[in-house]
Amino acid sequence: ARALGLGRNTVNLAYEGLAQLGWVTAHVGQGTFVSRPTPGSAPSDSEPTLPRGFVWESLFSNRGHLGLVPRIPTPDRGEVRVDLRAGRVDGGALPADVLRRAAGRALRELPAVANRLEPGGSRALRVEIARSLLARGIACDAEDVLVVHGAQQALDLVARTLIDPGDAVVVEQPGYFGASLAFAASQASLVGVGVDASGMRTDELRRILRARRVKLVYTTPAVQCPTGVALCEPRRRELLELADTYQVPILEDDYDCQLRLGTQAAPALKTWDDAGQVVYVGTFSKALFPGLRLGYVVAAPALRRQLRLARLVADFGCSALDEALLVDLLRSGALERHVRRMRKLYAERLEALASALEAGLPEGSRVSRPAGGTALWLTLPAQVDAATFHRLAREAGFAYTRGEEFFVGPGGERHLYLSFACHPPAELAAAGDELARLVVRAARRRPAPLQVS
Amino acid sequence: ARALGLGRNTVNLAYEGLAQLGWVTAHVGQGTFVSRPTPGSAPSDSEPTLPRGFVWESLFSNRGHLGLVPRIPTPDRGEVRVDLRAGRVDGGALPADVLRRAAGRALRELPAVANRLEPGGSRALRVEIARSLLARGIACDAEDVLVVHGAQQALDLVARTLIDPGDAVVVEQPGYFGASLAFAASQASLVGVGVDASGMRTDELRRILRARRVKLVYTTPAVQCPTGVALCEPRRRELLELADTYQVPILEDDYDCQLRLGTQAAPALKTWDDAGQVVYVGTFSKALFPGLRLGYVVAAPALRRQLRLARLVADFGCSALDEALLVDLLRSGALERHVRRMRKLYAERLEALASALEAGLPEGSRVSRPAGGTALWLTLPAQVDAATFHRLAREAGFAYTRGEEFFVGPGGERHLYLSFACHPPAELAAAGDELARLVVRAARRRPAPLQVS
Repeated sequence: ARALGLGRNTVNLAYEGLAQLGWVTAHVGQGTFVSRPTPGSAPSDSEPTLPRGFVWESLFSNRGHLGLVPRIPTPDRGEVRVDLRAGRVDGGALPADVLRRAAGRALRELPAVANRLEPGGSRALRVEIARSLLARGIACDAEDVLVVHGAQQALDLVARTLIDPGDAVVVEQPGYFGASLAFAASQASLVGVGVDASGMRTDELRRILRARRVKLVYTTPAVQCPTGVALCEPRRRELLELADTYQVPILEDDYDCQLRLGTQAAPALKTWDDAGQVVYVGTFSKALFPGLRLGYVVAAPALRRQLRLARLVADFGCSALDEALLVDLLRSGALERHVRRMRKLYAERLEALASALEAGLPEGSRVSRPAGGTALWLTLPAQVDAATFHRLAREAGFAYTRGEEFFVGPGGERHLYLSFACHPPAELAAAGDELARLVVRAARRRPAPLQVS
Repeated sequence: ARALGLGRNTVNLAYEGLAQLGWVTAHVGQGTFVSRPTPGSAPSDSEPTLPRGFVWESLFSNRGHLGLVPRIPTPDRGEVRVDLRAGRVDGGALPADVLRRAAGRALRELPAVANRLEPGGSRALRVEIARSLLARGIACDAEDVLVVHGAQQALDLVARTLIDPGDAVVVEQPGYFGASLAFAASQASLVGVGVDASGMRTDELRRILRARRVKLVYTTPAVQCPTGVALCEPRRRELLELADTYQVPILEDDYDCQLRLGTQAAPALKTWDDAGQVVYVGTFSKALFPGLRLGYVVAAPALRRQLRLARLVADFGCSALDEALLVDLLRSGALERHVRRMRKLYAERLEALASALEAGLPEGSRVSRPAGGTALWLTLPAQVDAATFHRLAREAGFAYTRGEEFFVGPGGERHLYLSFACHPPAELAAAGDELARLVVRAARRRPAPLQVS
């Protein structure tokens, strides 16, 4: 700004523009650098890059360093005709009567719980969560559970507790945006490790752990976010062995565990955690609904104590009414019944969307059917210009979650994260069909700058 | 530990014991030092001390520094006969029918709000909060409001956004424990400024601001926590003038604003905030109940944007049901009616407890009737050994919030923070009478070490 006699904001805007175009990359605590021409998908051990696609901005500007967070993605403007954005459940399929009766009971308890401020969550809820975790193969007590405002708070508390500025944190690539956000805000250096059809590439992880000190490994083994892949058993064993060998904690985010869509789900990593290195995070945002801000962490006693103190700093606890409501649904079995119903419903919806896409997509496209959850991962074929496709889809009234959200570094623009949660099968089949045709159309066109008239 | 051949835990326990006895003091990022003999009440510009009374512990032990937080105060053991602990409302006085109907309406909206994740709070709630703030003299728009999980999250987000390790933050002495907690976790140096019958001593603040760079001034002007004093108008003007002169933001915590007990409340500092230096924090924990985790921040646009990003890192928003419930209560006027009723109720209860104490307490005692809220501040006379009194009171089955919670440094043991929220006037009169007699009894005794037989 000084060199050119411009305002700081103008220069910042220019940097943002360059970053959006992929020409420059920001590094935590170091500054902004010209991007290397072909970063590829190999993990960059020495120079971790930050998520692109989002415009990263300085959050803690007064700290003299860059604690970076992405701009909140804005929904597409204009009329949205088909909304396939991820992170949602079918609100209309919630058991309204069950919820109303449970809320009534929760309110009758209000005089007794109105003053409840339990930074770890009510004992009743912790008991029920511990009991429900048996189904995931996790044996723990109410004392082991810390109730928080959804998985995001769990990730943030772990980051605040464990991460020093500059510490390396391994994240899946592609991986969950909210986790990278929490780690970046604690000034971690993000190191991406690749994902293939068997989940996180533990061979890459081994190379990283050999080469440098890593403070934390973040993973979504049950339903890899966003690809939907389940981590295969040999890699599960290898991951736990690596955690033990290198004494590095694993943060297992089991966010979609209740909504598995196959018949059999692998037990949680935490089940085999003899070394006590796994910090387990769960949430009720998917089994019930995101507006219910209730999740939890299960960790070894020493870390748990620190997390509880960090929670006391952050806020004094969760909504007493929501906690009482959830206890009721867990105790009565209503939640389990609802989840069973939703699994069937979502499996049918996934089938409708995935089949339509597979039938219509040109060669080189890839539809990854998830092991669970509410969204599938679509990869555009190499011959399609991604920008052209996204423009066509937007013009046709489609809204969806773009792949850039899940990438540390470039490569995200070729992917779509499509929710199948909120539409009946017939609508999803029509949407899949239409999207596939748009991909075919985009494949016929050349990228805009090369187009003739 | 190495010098004595002991385990680290043993040495830590010894340090904790010494700190509890007041023999040593921990300093953020520096270590533990032998206490100066008489720290007095003057603000210590160069060497801020940390709250005593709590045992401060290392939260972020892996960070190579001491981010310190107090141990959560445990309730007195044994049978509690009269519970006067602060921070509670009368749960039985909540408008049960009104809440049930509002919750029913909120649940009917659920399909529409189930997927709502608004890190800033729903627009409907922000509109209602902005409207309700007019009564405090604050003119702001829905866009200016950030909804959070109670005042504590507001304080933590402000701390995370503004404070660098080692930054000086001015806090009232005595002052609110949760604020010191949030600032200490962000590794602030806490600087205490005295409080007298007219509120925060702005003359002391002026001296501090002249002597050193201060990052933030935290204050509770409407109902000083814990003394209950309202900041007088000349000091309000001086505070705002100092903020402008020294360009230091004021964090105004208006936690008890709705429960003023006098006829007239001074407008908020924020009302006169021409320089845009006041960050305003409010909560519904007192007007409704603490288990409802809903509060808010109003700040100037630049900071607000940073706070919203920090909120996105911390968690993705508040309970959709609680937000819908609160919108309903604000819109219908039910909250305002409830608050008016509670003001009268609490004023009668305060009168009952305060009168009984004043009638029975020996000379030199001081009962500070608060300008609002649910607790009064009692100071024991100099001739009473505080430890003896606390022992007698505990033996008699009393539980209350002890003064140590509110002090940066020693001096808290002579104070009690007594809630009058949860008992009818007759019970409070009896409790006040009994407590006063215990003070008289304690005054007759010598401190334990000097006692004969």
